[in-house]
Amino acid sequence: MPGYRITLAYDGTDYVGWQRQANGVSIQGLIEDALRALDERDVTLHGAGRTDAGVHALGQVASFTLHRALPCDALVRALNARLPAAIRVLSADEAPADFHPRFSAREKTYRYRIWNGDAISPFECRYAWHVSGALDAGAMQAAAALLVGRHDFAAFQSTGSDVATTEREIVASAIVTAGPPSRTIRFGGPGAAERAPEPLIIYEVTGTGFLRHMVRAIVGTLVEVGRGRQPIEWMGRVLASRDRAIAGPTAPPEGLFLVGVTYGESLAANP
Amino acid sequence: MPGYRITLAYDGTDYVGWQRQANGVSIQGLIEDALRALDERDVTLHGAGRTDAGVHALGQVASFTLHRALPCDALVRALNARLPAAIRVLSADEAPADFHPRFSAREKTYRYRIWNGDAISPFECRYAWHVSGALDAGAMQAAAALLVGRHDFAAFQSTGSDVATTEREIVASAIVTAGPPSRTIRFGGPGAAERAPEPLIIYEVTGTGFLRHMVRAIVGTLVEVGRGRQPIEWMGRVLASRDRAIAGPTAPPEGLFLVGVTYGESLAANP
Repeated sequence: MPGYRITLAYDGTDYVGWQRQANGVSIQGLIEDALRALDERDVTLHGAGRTDAGVHALGQVASFTLHRALPCDALVRALNARLPAAIRVLSADEAPADFHPRFSAREKTYRYRIWNGDAISPFECRYAWHVSGALDAGAMQAAAALLVGRHDFAAFQSTGSDVATTEREIVASAIVTAGPPSRTIRFGGPGAAERAPEPLIIYEVTGTGFLRHMVRAIVGTLVEVGRGRQPIEWMGRVLASRDRAIAGPTAPPEGLFLVGVTYGESLAANP
Repeated sequence: MPGYRITLAYDGTDYVGWQRQANGVSIQGLIEDALRALDERDVTLHGAGRTDAGVHALGQVASFTLHRALPCDALVRALNARLPAAIRVLSADEAPADFHPRFSAREKTYRYRIWNGDAISPFECRYAWHVSGALDAGAMQAAAALLVGRHDFAAFQSTGSDVATTEREIVASAIVTAGPPSRTIRFGGPGAAERAPEPLIIYEVTGTGFLRHMVRAIVGTLVEVGRGRQPIEWMGRVLASRDRAIAGPTAPPEGLFLVGVTYGESLAANP
């Protein structure tokens, strides 16, 4: 049976998350429904990252096998015709039999967007965490850099998780955009980003793997530093504590994007 | 009684439009509800433009009077605290007794966004019309320029409208952004605009007044030219015909934004 890998983008606002659940509409469920219509039998979809309710993706990767072979471009068109506009298949290619989007992944990158102004643009409220009160992006950057390397990230794992090890390797952790900490509440809507700098602070992190809610707990901790409630070095102490109760709160889901997943050279990176 | 003018931005996707209606949630209705809670009596809100269901605003202007005077910054905060995040009051100031946001307006500016790529980004589908198949932005620009001046715009008025005159003056009509007519369907989500050009064609029009559905009928007509179904000069013939049946179809609401409204010098422009 032919195996396929697809790359997806989605606006997660109106869904219960990636994973199929008994109640509510999931991304996985909608794509499995579309695949069932195409292949005329049940198809199981495997994803690279189980994004939570409200979390978005720019380059989620998923795989499945079909009984009937389809050209990749026809597969993209057929899936997009059956999916809501909030979920788009960007590309498809054939995948080796042993490919698994999660277990074969080499690195994943997440982006977290913070709106740091008095009022959040109505066109950003689905896609950013609104933090009012000035944030020190320089202090946040210095704290973010302390996470690079192989560490035990137990302090940033949501309680009740059950994984073999809480050790992960972070290869990049940085504030990549820091708009002016503007006190104005005027904004230009979609397309305005080229013209006027907006009060956005954007954090990006790349790692070999992530624990449940890890990025959101890191962001909640970075914001404590940005607010000046804690010094930069506190990030190192939180990490060393391996205690979730020490870290900052979990940032809300709407600011989080799974940017992309990379694989070994035999599976050229897609996002 | 003190009179106020407010400037508003909203994402119109989930509302029945500006105007209060018997069925469905309107922008006007939500703001009047918030004002009633503040002033402890019914308050009537007047708007500069009655945007339709799904149409957005970056700088809508509205006015009302209260029985109890409030400082303008307190008014902004109190309204935003009561309104959903999809509707934001950007500013408030005191307005003269004879101020009416529609009748006092000197000019209004609208923007229409077209996504001209194979698949529309999930982060754009609420804010742009998806037109696949290449559009010639240069031809659209040449056709758009033919509308500048004082003309009878009856050809672009939705049927069944009842207005004293269909003559209006357009002072600017242009394609202001034309991204590459990309055939790729990769996109970067919010914040990506600075990094990679997206397949967006953006039309902006400023005039002393607009007929019902006029901007959307103009855009539907421009797209006929962009597709190459009609020559540039056809725009002039449509205008001269004063016949709605000759013009192109009405473009869908999701691409339309009320950008701003300007007033005379005694009422400094707000958006």
